[in-house]
Amino acid sequence: MELLSALSLGELALSFSRVPLFPVFDLSYFIVSILYLKYEPEMRLHYVPRAGLELLGSRDPLASASQSAGITGAVELSRRHPIASWLCAMLHCFGSYILADLLLGEPLIDYFSNNSSILLASAVWYLIFFCPLDLFYKCVCFLPVKLIFVAMKEVVRVRKIAVGIHHAHHHYHHGWFVMIATGWVKGSGVALMSNFEQLLRGVWKPETNEILHMSFPTKASLYGAILFTLQQTRWLPVSKASLIFIFTMFMVSCKVFLTATHSHSSPFDALEGYICPVLFGSACGGDHHHDNHGGSHGGGGPGAQHSAMPAKSKEELSEGSRKKKTKKAD
Amino acid sequence: MELLSALSLGELALSFSRVPLFPVFDLSYFIVSILYLKYEPEMRLHYVPRAGLELLGSRDPLASASQSAGITGAVELSRRHPIASWLCAMLHCFGSYILADLLLGEPLIDYFSNNSSILLASAVWYLIFFCPLDLFYKCVCFLPVKLIFVAMKEVVRVRKIAVGIHHAHHHYHHGWFVMIATGWVKGSGVALMSNFEQLLRGVWKPETNEILHMSFPTKASLYGAILFTLQQTRWLPVSKASLIFIFTMFMVSCKVFLTATHSHSSPFDALEGYICPVLFGSACGGDHHHDNHGGSHGGGGPGAQHSAMPAKSKEELSEGSRKKKTKKAD
Amino acid sequence: MELLSALSLGELALSFSRVPLFPVFDLSYFIVSILYLKYEPEMRLHYVPRAGLELLGSRDPLASASQSAGITGAVELSRRHPIASWLCAMLHCFGSYILADLLLGEPLIDYFSNNSSILLASAVWYLIFFCPLDLFYKCVCFLPVKLIFVAMKEVVRVRKIAVGIHHAHHHYHHGWFVMIATGWVKGSGVALMSNFEQLLRGVWKPETNEILHMSFPTKASLYGAILFTLQQTRWLPVSKASLIFIFTMFMVSCKVFLTATHSHSSPFDALEGYICPVLFGSACGGDHHHDNHGGSHGGGGPGAQHSAMPAKSKEELSEGSRKKKTKKAD
Repeated sequence: MELLSALSLGELALSFSRVPLFPVFDLSYFIVSILYLKYEPEMRLHYVPRAGLELLGSRDPLASASQSAGITGAVELSRRHPIASWLCAMLHCFGSYILADLLLGEPLIDYFSNNSSILLASAVWYLIFFCPLDLFYKCVCFLPVKLIFVAMKEVVRVRKIAVGIHHAHHHYHHGWFVMIATGWVKGSGVALMSNFEQLLRGVWKPETNEILHMSFPTKASLYGAILFTLQQTRWLPVSKASLIFIFTMFMVSCKVFLTATHSHSSPFDALEGYICPVLFGSACGGDHHHDNHGGSHGGGGPGAQHSAMPAKSKEELSEGSRKKKTKKAD
Repeated sequence: MELLSALSLGELALSFSRVPLFPVFDLSYFIVSILYLKYEPEMRLHYVPRAGLELLGSRDPLASASQSAGITGAVELSRRHPIASWLCAMLHCFGSYILADLLLGEPLIDYFSNNSSILLASAVWYLIFFCPLDLFYKCVCFLPVKLIFVAMKEVVRVRKIAVGIHHAHHHYHHGWFVMIATGWVKGSGVALMSNFEQLLRGVWKPETNEILHMSFPTKASLYGAILFTLQQTRWLPVSKASLIFIFTMFMVSCKVFLTATHSHSSPFDALEGYICPVLFGSACGGDHHHDNHGGSHGGGGPGAQHSAMPAKSKEELSEGSRKKKTKKAD
Repeated sequence: MELLSALSLGELALSFSRVPLFPVFDLSYFIVSILYLKYEPEMRLHYVPRAGLELLGSRDPLASASQSAGITGAVELSRRHPIASWLCAMLHCFGSYILADLLLGEPLIDYFSNNSSILLASAVWYLIFFCPLDLFYKCVCFLPVKLIFVAMKEVVRVRKIAVGIHHAHHHYHHGWFVMIATGWVKGSGVALMSNFEQLLRGVWKPETNEILHMSFPTKASLYGAILFTLQQTRWLPVSKASLIFIFTMFMVSCKVFLTATHSHSSPFDALEGYICPVLFGSACGGDHHHDNHGGSHGGGGPGAQHSAMPAKSKEELSEGSRKKKTKKAD
């Protein structure tokens, strides 16, 4: 009986690992990725409004410049600069391929020869940003629908990690670090180059990046890449299909739970809370609160949090300029 | 008679497409490119002096730092940091090759093995920046002379686009997007990496880039790359020689006209005014005023414009005209 | 007698050029490189505290954000963000390989397939940052010990330049500029990409870079690369082994002297003082003072110096907050 269940689990894993990704799963990947792009909060420049100026009744010239230039959000960007918006969308969809190609010395633009993928992603981008009445966006944002897409995106992510490590192993048979790095960038995608993706939209936030404030998918991709590398080099005695299946189940359940509860706590927190103090001293764990506020893209994380605080305290100074200030803080 | 003229036109186009570029046309390309580098306005940092500090009688520490450090212009840079200036000049001359090599996974430094081109460009750089009495600069800036060089630069640009697409087609037979991207970067050159070219000189303007505010040559290169891609894949039923000839004529006449009249309006404005509202909503066209102030390198465009105005309005601050100021800042 | 000494010198050079670098010399290279990382002064953001705000009794929101986010130094970084710290350490150790691979179109991650080198560098990183009682750091910082490591690092640097040029020569037989560039990046390493290495740690200093303010090792690497290129192309009539030996002796003596005396003056200053005015006008030499204050990484060089000056002038405004301000300005 147990043998039978084991057999059927192995077979399930094997057939699961052979499901083709292209039309349906890739579509979900594109939808969720571009949704995140549209979610991005107001894309102001990295200049935090300064209290001193506020008190003097003047407004920050650069902040207002950026407002009048209209770079106030992804929607605004897509209206005014469709090409920049489209490029950002492509980075969100194919960033992992670009980064992996960069690491492995292949043409950066290699993946863009898959016309059908590019056209599919472009269609998703167009529908999400320009669909009349925002109909498409509202449909895919409906939580049950979105959860399905999120789950399917994780399937693609895990498969990408596995393929990336297989590919790196092909080039560097004993290159452990190469395999881990390739798997990591294949899993994390655009997050690891978020600084430069933002720069494309005229946003520059040098004080944070995905490596300083890792989001759950980035961290999970790193751990996943280590696991798959162990499997690839035969240190982990499981078949690749099983590992794909198990890790996909883990990622899907975590990500769906996190998305459903709008939570930012990471399942690795407990583990890291034990390991980090032993390895790196005690401060490591203390950052997780900052870390998780950043959301999937580490965007407004600690910066927004801290910049909000002085603004708040200053409100008590001059009651009159409250509205102006909160507007600016956004 | 008509047949004859058609024949002779075809022959003219063919012989035109076979004119070797190296010594003369390339020289013009280098001269105009490095002229643009010398034209670059005051290379101050992107910190706009702040009114609050101004009122207190103090100057912005960073602004004065950049001034006393002497990074106030390309000439100053060439005097103090000749190597940085030379590297910038090389990027201006060969940026298109570097970007195309990056995209296609070839050595970034590949083109630098053409010693004669590098030496020619270096000689032009030296003459433009260090010629006694600024004689060379004054000669090539004389409008009729400059117009000839500008025209010849466009000949090189169009040829580069065609060659780039041919090269990309060789690698990716059905890679439409790869071909367009390669042609675009070959045509646009350093403009697409202007942020990083500026960084080399200690200047950082993250709030703008060439993709957000496309100049005429960048836009024309994009459209040209689409046309040449259509030709390469046999969707456009003209010979490559004819397309090169026609597109060169278009680019030469546009660029010469724009340079002669110091105008920044783009011949694509009308076309985009029709298409953008249909495809992307109405806001798209409204940005062209900002766009065009940026000039060929999108450099000081909206930033300079906006930063200049609040500085002006600061003089009125003591009179308590707050609202006027905020309006002006917009 | 003279023939004998010449022979023995040649033999000495030859056997010196055959000493294997891997365990001992590479170890020294890693130790000194990661020491420099730990030396890095307070890694604040590039926002200089503003006096105006100070006077108003408020603190710069971003400055406090960076402080509370804890990015105040390399040690702090290693505690809170061990992965970012490790990546920085790897860039410090292997930056030269990454840059050379980028230039020559090889996989960026190529060198990371040398597991033993990576593990050795990681062990050094761990010992320097996390050794109990900071024992390892204190040992290697003890001046006589450190001088030995510094000397051995220069041996590795010169060998890297020679190997880089040999490698580039293999690809581009007549590519003078390619050879010089490859040798230069192999010798300079992480310094040439310090802006991006800092970005990884959340620090962004666009107003300076290694090319604007070259440190002694960067400059020496450039001159060395030119010499080795001349040797490789048979314009310099010495054997490669002799050139390696002579240039290593020069680098070792210079760097040991500079480190022992904590001096920042460069032995090239006199030479450049003669050549620059002739070639590039008179201003060039005047920058060397700025240049050298930057230290090995050109970090807070002129910026810190100049930002201190207005701070000074502001001290006359409010006598009380003098100490606080100067501390912040540092």
